[in-house]
Parts: sequence; structure tokens; C-alpha cells
Amino acid sequence: MQRTSNTGPAAVHAPDATLEVAVAAGGLRSPRVVMIGAGQLARMTHQAAISLALDFTVVAASADDAAVRAGAPWRRADPNAYAELEAAVAGADVVTFDHERIPPEHLQQLAAGGYNLQPKPAAKLFAQDKAHQRGELARLGFPVPEFAVVADAASARAFARRHGWPLVAKPPRGGYDGRGVFVVADETELERLLGEQGTLLLEARLDLVAELAVLTARSTNGEAVVYPVVETVQVDGMCREIIVPARVSDAQRTEAQQLALAISEAIGATGVVALELFCTRAGLLVNELALRPHNSGHYTIEGCVTSQFEQHLRAVVGWPLGSTELVAPAVATVNVVGPPDGSDPRAALPHALATVRDVHVHLYGKGPRPGRKLGHVTVLAANPDEALARARRAAAVLEGRAQ
Amino acid sequence: MQRTSNTGPAAVHAPDATLEVAVAAGGLRSPRVVMIGAGQLARMTHQAAISLALDFTVVAASADDAAVRAGAPWRRADPNAYAELEAAVAGADVVTFDHERIPPEHLQQLAAGGYNLQPKPAAKLFAQDKAHQRGELARLGFPVPEFAVVADAASARAFARRHGWPLVAKPPRGGYDGRGVFVVADETELERLLGEQGTLLLEARLDLVAELAVLTARSTNGEAVVYPVVETVQVDGMCREIIVPARVSDAQRTEAQQLALAISEAIGATGVVALELFCTRAGLLVNELALRPHNSGHYTIEGCVTSQFEQHLRAVVGWPLGSTELVAPAVATVNVVGPPDGSDPRAALPHALATVRDVHVHLYGKGPRPGRKLGHVTVLAANPDEALARARRAAAVLEGRAQ
Repeated sequence: MQRTSNTGPAAVHAPDATLEVAVAAGGLRSPRVVMIGAGQLARMTHQAAISLALDFTVVAASADDAAVRAGAPWRRADPNAYAELEAAVAGADVVTFDHERIPPEHLQQLAAGGYNLQPKPAAKLFAQDKAHQRGELARLGFPVPEFAVVADAASARAFARRHGWPLVAKPPRGGYDGRGVFVVADETELERLLGEQGTLLLEARLDLVAELAVLTARSTNGEAVVYPVVETVQVDGMCREIIVPARVSDAQRTEAQQLALAISEAIGATGVVALELFCTRAGLLVNELALRPHNSGHYTIEGCVTSQFEQHLRAVVGWPLGSTELVAPAVATVNVVGPPDGSDPRAALPHALATVRDVHVHLYGKGPRPGRKLGHVTVLAANPDEALARARRAAAVLEGRAQ
Repeated sequence: MQRTSNTGPAAVHAPDATLEVAVAAGGLRSPRVVMIGAGQLARMTHQAAISLALDFTVVAASADDAAVRAGAPWRRADPNAYAELEAAVAGADVVTFDHERIPPEHLQQLAAGGYNLQPKPAAKLFAQDKAHQRGELARLGFPVPEFAVVADAASARAFARRHGWPLVAKPPRGGYDGRGVFVVADETELERLLGEQGTLLLEARLDLVAELAVLTARSTNGEAVVYPVVETVQVDGMCREIIVPARVSDAQRTEAQQLALAISEAIGATGVVALELFCTRAGLLVNELALRPHNSGHYTIEGCVTSQFEQHLRAVVGWPLGSTELVAPAVATVNVVGPPDGSDPRAALPHALATVRDVHVHLYGKGPRPGRKLGHVTVLAANPDEALARARRAAAVLEGRAQ
């Protein structure tokens, strides 16, 4: 059901050296990892870093950020302000990321200044710029949806004539969690959006059989591993449910894993990469890439031998990677999202634990704004449907939608 | 192989109320748990508290303590200084412990002052005073080794005449990790020790078939659960290896679990209790009790549905308890102890990860003094012997005893 591949040193991108643990005069020093971003991904990476006794620091916008609330050492910086960003990563053995929202030119400047960024700026750009991702992956021969990058109304109209309405339009940079994906009904709307954004990535609207995601990890020592294929359910563009293994054919699972390994190698990625895929009647097509731990991998904390957070740390410091095998026949993760009435899932936590036995609850310690990702729940079970039903129930109790 | 028992509200000790999550004017507040002690047990409890978004603080002797190094919020106090201790726990909804070394009279004073201690001082005393434990458990009808509490040479000699030499002598308070257990060869040695200590718990030396341990957890809401029986291997009085399930008969496993549940209920324990048992040809005898997460339960982090650290937190705040089921047929945990040459296991960590696939490494971030517990490794496998062999190998690599 689940395959692990150690592809060995990548053919295209020579592996970096493993970071040695330095024995200094004052005693041994673990690799100093600085993660730009301090949200829930950094929070869970901090939990993993504790077990490995890594020297782990996050770059946060505020003391209120989820990782800072969990006790991660931190430095304050606005990643848009280059001087602040550089000061915050000073002294790092490795710089890595919990999000995409850092200006690519800042990453290039850090790399030029000798900072050891993992992933490298050129790889990270595949997650930061959708037009770059589509163009480069198409050039490399990977399956992507039909697309055009347009900056004028005539080109946009030409694409619309070929593919019909509605179209999907995405500003190349800046969108996440559904922000930055527009379904455009007609020419007037498209021209208004183009006027606002300047450049748009246009895609034909697809008929989806399912949405899938696959995590890989590539260590700077050259090792690569792939996790099981998961089925994702998006609501309002936000990943809400993860079902493992994906309820698709064995052949499709194998194809998705091979695609994920091939893409992460081709783009020279290091650390964890999440590949999101559209599953259509015509086959698999690349949707998005994230070069960091990802919502679709939260199930790995309890569901796999090695969590995506520990794996990411091991990969970016050049340590050997861990097994990606499932520890149960099936796993489901459901996000806990702030309910419309602003109520806080923490209030329902004891009740959720009583209602759904064996549920693993992760709350991110964030203020309960409606629609905000506040946590997730994971359930291991004998089959995907059972895991999903129980995880859904726990999430519903936490969100106050069920007793 | 593994049984879970929900005994419902305890007959003898009425359950306390569950701590409600308070919705204050400034927003919701999670229960504020203060743990006295900041070693590796508090460090791993901190990791568990992050997932539950609990408000968790440790009371540390120094900023260098393992839990403080992991980012746990902390207050400084010497637990022997009552005023410092009380100041450090001020504002807690629950006060709990990562060790036994707090003067029992200080706990009574805190309880009298209205602090919500979990476990209560009277229960905690079973882990703090070996003479009290033996006397009370014997009175309650639980199987303990033959013993005498002596304060004069004549009584000591009388016990020796009945049981022969060597004897085992333990000062009632203060010992842990083998400190405080003396094998006494003759009368001269015994009288010298008695002169030093004032009072001694004397026991006949036993022929052991094995040493076992069983964790239970009792929530202040009245629920109780029991974990699988584990086999422990002690070296120089320090627990070094944990093998799960214990390689004893089903009947002995059942007996050990029933004993653990009965004792923890009888003494009114709350939170996690570790019962250490001597397995002799004549049957099971109580060795020690710890009322806190325990070295013999580290295997639960990856080996059970609910780790002992999360379970302890759920129990002391009165939340429902989690499943104690194993997630694999067998688990082994081996401690990583500072080698004689003072070398640091962190230096060998990448090599250990490469050598033993699927090993879970936990390092405590402590300075590498010879003989000090610096971490542990856990391996899940198809049978106990395989799990143990692989965990031993990983520990040997980390300690520099193997390549």
C-alpha cells in the first residue's frame, strides 16, 4: 500500500554535505536551525525539534504566533523587510520555512550572502510563483493543466475562446488557503481582475474525480523518501480533510508517488515537499507545490513512523531520513476551523475526548477567529471510511456543530 | 494482550470535579497546570501540553533544566524552600510533579492553603517514603516483600537473624535511580549504615525471575486506565531497558494489571502511577511506586495510542482518559546514558539514525555527564526480542559503544 524510495544522490543537483555536529570549546553544539515563520507548522516542528535536541529558532511576526506560544525560541522580523529578516537568521546553520510568503528576491539575497537556505531559493520559487511553477513543470514534461500566463485582455480573451467559461484565474504570487483562486464567469469579470492584478495565471476549469496529495522529503545528503498518497477534501479552497490511503487505484497511487519523487528531484528541492494533484478522468495533473511541512501531512504525526516535522528537520540538516510507513491500515485528519460564532474549540476539548475515543487532538493555541485553522484531529482505524467518520465527529464537537 | 479498565468513580475516594475551561472576559483560558520539577519528564510533558494547548508551566531549579531548554514557561524555586515553592505555584489550577523530592510537609502545607495538588499529598507520600509505602500496602493486604522498619541495632539484628545475609537496606526517603538501595553484607556494615541514616527499611534479598512495571492513570473525574505490563532491566539500580509486552505468562500480566489498578485506587492516586514489581518464584511483590510519568512509560510515546505524558495531563485536569492500547505487537525502549569518557550522544545522532532504521530518538538536551540519563530510544517491532535488539544497537551507537 505504501512505498518508500531511496533514490540516492540526485542526478541533477549534487547533494550538499551533511551538517556535522560541531564540538566547540564550550562543548557540543547541535545544528542551529532557523525557521522563517511561526505558525502551526513551526509549532509542530518545534515539538519534533525537542526530541532531537536540535537548536531550533523561529522567526515570528509577533509573540502571539502559534510557535512562540509553544515556547519556541524566536526572533521578531517582518519577512518583507530585508534587514529585519537577515538580522533574524544571523548565526543559523540552516534557514528553512513554514510558509511561502517571503519575497523571492530576499531569499536570493540571503543565499548570495552565504546563508544556507534549505530549500534553495530557486526550488522555493516553485511554491511562491504559480506562473513559474506551471511554466517550468510544463517545460520539464510534467503533467499540468492547460494554462496561460496573461498580462493583457487580448491574450486573456484568446485563452477563454479556446477553453470556455468559467475560467480559473490565479495571481501568480501571494495566494494560499483559497485566497488567490478566482472562478471567473465572463469577460467583464476577467478584465476587472486583470486590471487589479496586472498578471494572471489562467486555467481551464477541470472536472475533478478527486484531489490527492503526496509528501516527499529530500535530505541534503541526497536521500529521498515518499509518503503514502492521501486524498484531500477542500472547502472554500482550504484543505479540510485528509484521508489515507487515498481511495483511488493502486496504479494511480504509484503514479502519484513517482510523480512526486520526480518533481522534487527535478526542481532540486530539499526538506519536505507537498505535491497537490488534480485527479481527472484524463489522469493526474499538478495543482500546487509547497516546499515545507504541509496541512496534508499532519496525519503523519501519529499515522506514520516518522512525522513530516521530524522528517523536514532531518532533511534540511542532512541527516538520514526516517521510514514513511503507515502504522495503521488507515488514517484521517480533519481540520478544526474557527466557527462563525467565534467560539473556542478549547472549551469543547474535554467533551471531544469523551465522545471520540482514540482521537488525537492538536490545538494550535491561536485566537478563535471564524474560518481560521485552529487545530486538527487525527484518527487511526481499520479503513479510511471509519477513520474519516470518527475524525469528522471529533472536529464537529470541537467546532460546536455536534454534541 | 492489553486490557483497559474504566472502573468508573472510585469507591473510596470521591472524584473531584473536572476542571472547566474558563471563559473569562478576556477570552477563554485553558487549565493552568504547574509541574514541580523540570527534568526530562517535564520536558516530554511540555511536548504533550503543546498539542492540547494547555497552559503548562514548570518549576525549575535552573534555566539549564531539560524542560526549560525545551521552551517550557518556568518559574525558579528550590522545592525545599517553602516560600519559594508557594510563590512558584501561585495561580495554578492544578499542581503536579515530575519527581518525588519535595518535602511531604510542604505538600501538606500547599494543600492546606487551598492549592489543588494532583496527586494529593497523602497519595504522593507512597512514592516519597518507602517505609510508609511498605507499611500501608501491607496493612491493605497488597503483596510486599518481608520487611522491617528499624531504628536500633537490636531490631536490625533480629530481622537479620530471621532472613540471613546479605540484606537490602533502604533509607525511607530520598533515594532514586539506585541511590538509596544498599546491599548489606554483615552486622558491622548494617550498624554503620543505621548510625548514618537513623532509620532503615530492611528487606530480605529476593531471587528475581524478572522485574515488571505497570502504568495506570486515574483522572480526577473518576476514570482509570491501565497500560500493558512491561519488563524492566535495571543496571546499577537505574532502569535501562523496557520490553513490552513483558515476557511472562498471560496470568501474570493480568495479575500485575489488576494489582496496579487496585493499588492506585486504594491509595487515592490521581495522574499517572508507575508500579514497579518484583516477579519471584513465589509470585508478584510490590517494589516501588512513582506518582508521576515514569521512565518505564517512555515507550508509550510511540508505542501506545495515548502517551503517558498526555494521559497524565488529562488525568490531573479531570479530562477523559485515552486508550492505552499498543500500536504494534512489541516495543522496546533503551535509555541513553552518558558514557564514561563524557562524550555527547548528540554527536552520534545522525549515525544512529542511519544505522537503526525506524528508531525513535529522544534526547533530553542535558550536559553529557558520565552515568547521567541523557535520552532514550524506542523501537516498534513484530516481537519483543527484535525490538530490544534494535533499540540496544541504537543506544550503543549513541553512547559510542558501537559503530
